[in-house]
Amino acid sequence: MVPHLTTALTGPLLELERQFLDNAPEIEKWFRTQWQDHMPPFYGSTDLRNSGFKLAPVDLNLFPGGFNNLNDAFMPLCVQAAQSAVERICPDASSLLLIPENHTRNQFYLQNVASLVSILRLTGLDVRVGSLLPDIVEPTVLELNNGTTLTLEPLRRSGKRLGLDNFDPCAVLLNNDLSAGIPPVLKGLDEQWVIPPLHAGWHVRRKSKHAECYDRVAREFATTIGIDPWRINLDFGVCGQINFQERTGEECLAAQVDALLTRIRAKYKEYGVTDEPFVVVKADAGTYGMGVMTVTDASEVIGLNRRQRNKMAVVKEGLQVHEVIIQEGVHTFETVGEGVAEPVVYMMDHYVVGGFYRIHTERGRNENLNAPGMQFKPLAFDTSCIMPDVDLAPDAPPNRFYAYGVVARLALLAASVEIEETEPVHEIGEAA
Amino acid sequence: MVPHLTTALTGPLLELERQFLDNAPEIEKWFRTQWQDHMPPFYGSTDLRNSGFKLAPVDLNLFPGGFNNLNDAFMPLCVQAAQSAVERICPDASSLLLIPENHTRNQFYLQNVASLVSILRLTGLDVRVGSLLPDIVEPTVLELNNGTTLTLEPLRRSGKRLGLDNFDPCAVLLNNDLSAGIPPVLKGLDEQWVIPPLHAGWHVRRKSKHAECYDRVAREFATTIGIDPWRINLDFGVCGQINFQERTGEECLAAQVDALLTRIRAKYKEYGVTDEPFVVVKADAGTYGMGVMTVTDASEVIGLNRRQRNKMAVVKEGLQVHEVIIQEGVHTFETVGEGVAEPVVYMMDHYVVGGFYRIHTERGRNENLNAPGMQFKPLAFDTSCIMPDVDLAPDAPPNRFYAYGVVARLALLAASVEIEETEPVHEIGEAA
Repeated sequence: MVPHLTTALTGPLLELERQFLDNAPEIEKWFRTQWQDHMPPFYGSTDLRNSGFKLAPVDLNLFPGGFNNLNDAFMPLCVQAAQSAVERICPDASSLLLIPENHTRNQFYLQNVASLVSILRLTGLDVRVGSLLPDIVEPTVLELNNGTTLTLEPLRRSGKRLGLDNFDPCAVLLNNDLSAGIPPVLKGLDEQWVIPPLHAGWHVRRKSKHAECYDRVAREFATTIGIDPWRINLDFGVCGQINFQERTGEECLAAQVDALLTRIRAKYKEYGVTDEPFVVVKADAGTYGMGVMTVTDASEVIGLNRRQRNKMAVVKEGLQVHEVIIQEGVHTFETVGEGVAEPVVYMMDHYVVGGFYRIHTERGRNENLNAPGMQFKPLAFDTSCIMPDVDLAPDAPPNRFYAYGVVARLALLAASVEIEETEPVHEIGEAA
Repeated sequence: MVPHLTTALTGPLLELERQFLDNAPEIEKWFRTQWQDHMPPFYGSTDLRNSGFKLAPVDLNLFPGGFNNLNDAFMPLCVQAAQSAVERICPDASSLLLIPENHTRNQFYLQNVASLVSILRLTGLDVRVGSLLPDIVEPTVLELNNGTTLTLEPLRRSGKRLGLDNFDPCAVLLNNDLSAGIPPVLKGLDEQWVIPPLHAGWHVRRKSKHAECYDRVAREFATTIGIDPWRINLDFGVCGQINFQERTGEECLAAQVDALLTRIRAKYKEYGVTDEPFVVVKADAGTYGMGVMTVTDASEVIGLNRRQRNKMAVVKEGLQVHEVIIQEGVHTFETVGEGVAEPVVYMMDHYVVGGFYRIHTERGRNENLNAPGMQFKPLAFDTSCIMPDVDLAPDAPPNRFYAYGVVARLALLAASVEIEETEPVHEIGEAA
């Protein structure tokens, strides 16, 4: 059972959840139509924020890293959805090479990879794991804390194909977000499926492009069911020429912060929200919650001290930050025990397969819950996101989870549009 | 938990289950390829027989009637698979009219309809139930024994569309097998999806055509993974000109029975099986286990007494039997407690969504378990059919259920081929 969640501010959200419930036939038909026009990503996860008056995705991860946190009871759902993803993207594949991130010391991440391997094997694929780490020179068995094992093997490039010793896979599935760019070993593979396509990696992906696609998707969806898109969408701005270490571009950033805060204040007034508006400044490329800052006034981004500048200047893999997105902040109203709870929804193909709460006891309602070194306690959803019950209250767990699933799918759809629109001309050897 | 099943004769079947496990990547790839060439039915169920040396489907029902017997824990799997079916067959539908059988006194069947309505509603469809019964002249709420309700409404035909009062559905889903022929109200609907297509009804469907399609599918599958197709296939013969009441055609029947028994004896010898071979004579059209006879010697079908002739002459809806199929009998080796247990597997789209054992305490291992008036105890599978575990024994429940799922999907694929090959020229207003 998911513990009782604090629902002090449920008034307006109940209304949103009620609208989702009442419009479920329209919503599902709309999604079906969208998925006929857009190819869903192989998999994805999204962090949602729920303020009680607003339910919106904060980001969409195309290389999800928490399959280990899902409820075991819903593994069959994952397997069935993964079958669907394989069928859509690489139906003729019988073997698959999974390439994970290089965090060999992160037990949680390794358990995620092991879970993913299990799911994919259950679709009937012959799955092995190839590591980009130069020190993996022979098959290396890692014993994981949860009693499972994971074998990492050295990659073998042969002409335009990538494989392992005695393993020539039909498809390559990335669980590595390519923050450091495309490794040479992945370049020019034009005889194998590469999933997701290389241009979905963080070396080219931009949060602002995703936000722009989400904005369009959310507006169309909101029109379809007759709601204010602001209820499911985060306002944002972009600053494209900043250098935190050289202290250039601060004025642009401050102006954007101020403009966004002004727009949020107007909306808060319209909805009678008395919380203090805030925005989140993030590196436009990159993930893992690095390069993130919470701001309640434009003046806070002027004259940052050395520590603040260092924190913002560099993200994962040592990448310099020159472009930032300024995103509307959402106060998290959900709590479990003493901790702030942020729902994370997992999808494969276009199906919602489960999720969990990221619970943090040492952070406030307006802080980023996905930060470096952050320790969160995962709490698997106890109910699937596809079993709403009209006989229950709009905020009863099955209905709240359905609402999560609707918003999560909007973010996934936005990612599909984003991948389509950012596809390089003549990209070879890749699939969406 | 599924109770421990008697496994006295597991030797050879363990071998078959082991082959399925070892060849899972090939098997799943083969199915993916097949489903690219063949449209899966919207839904289907199959009764399997497991003799310990043979695991084969006895029939394939295109109008499954036991969704109420599935494990509640796997409802999300049904919903996800149903979403897939809707997407494939009627993606632009937002409302659906379900037409059930006319058994308004059969609580089990009505609970099946109620379960099906729930599943379909959870895909986001607006679902209502229209009855072919002339005495349903206004919306009629039936209170079911399991605490749910079901509302039957009178059908309203309007030009080339079928609906209910204030309900003009995009699609019509049949859970009525059309044994009595196509009701006039269903004829000439060329503006709505009719699912399954009308020619999948028992007014035209023949068990022998399905058996012939299954035979081809099973042979190709068996070649792919290198097994004797006999291990998953029932031998059969057909008698097309019989009249039980006028006692004509008995010689043809006896000759077919004898030939089939001879072939089975040869196979039993090859496999060292010491059981007594038997065959099952069934009406070639029709369902519900009517018109079924178990025979161990050709002489038994000569000079049938009046009671036997009456039993065979007429099936559901009073249809006369003139064509029979003579099917290889399979001794059921699975038992639960004192009862013989026959697995029934449920599918939506091409996904296995669950199943149950039909347990009968008063019938022998070589008797038909689906007979008129038969009382069976359903026992839901406790494990999904899509989570085989290579670390467990081949006959451990997840692996046995996987084997069930493989054979059940072969039967479903055979039904797809059958529906394709029996499609009338210029059939209008229908979908597979």
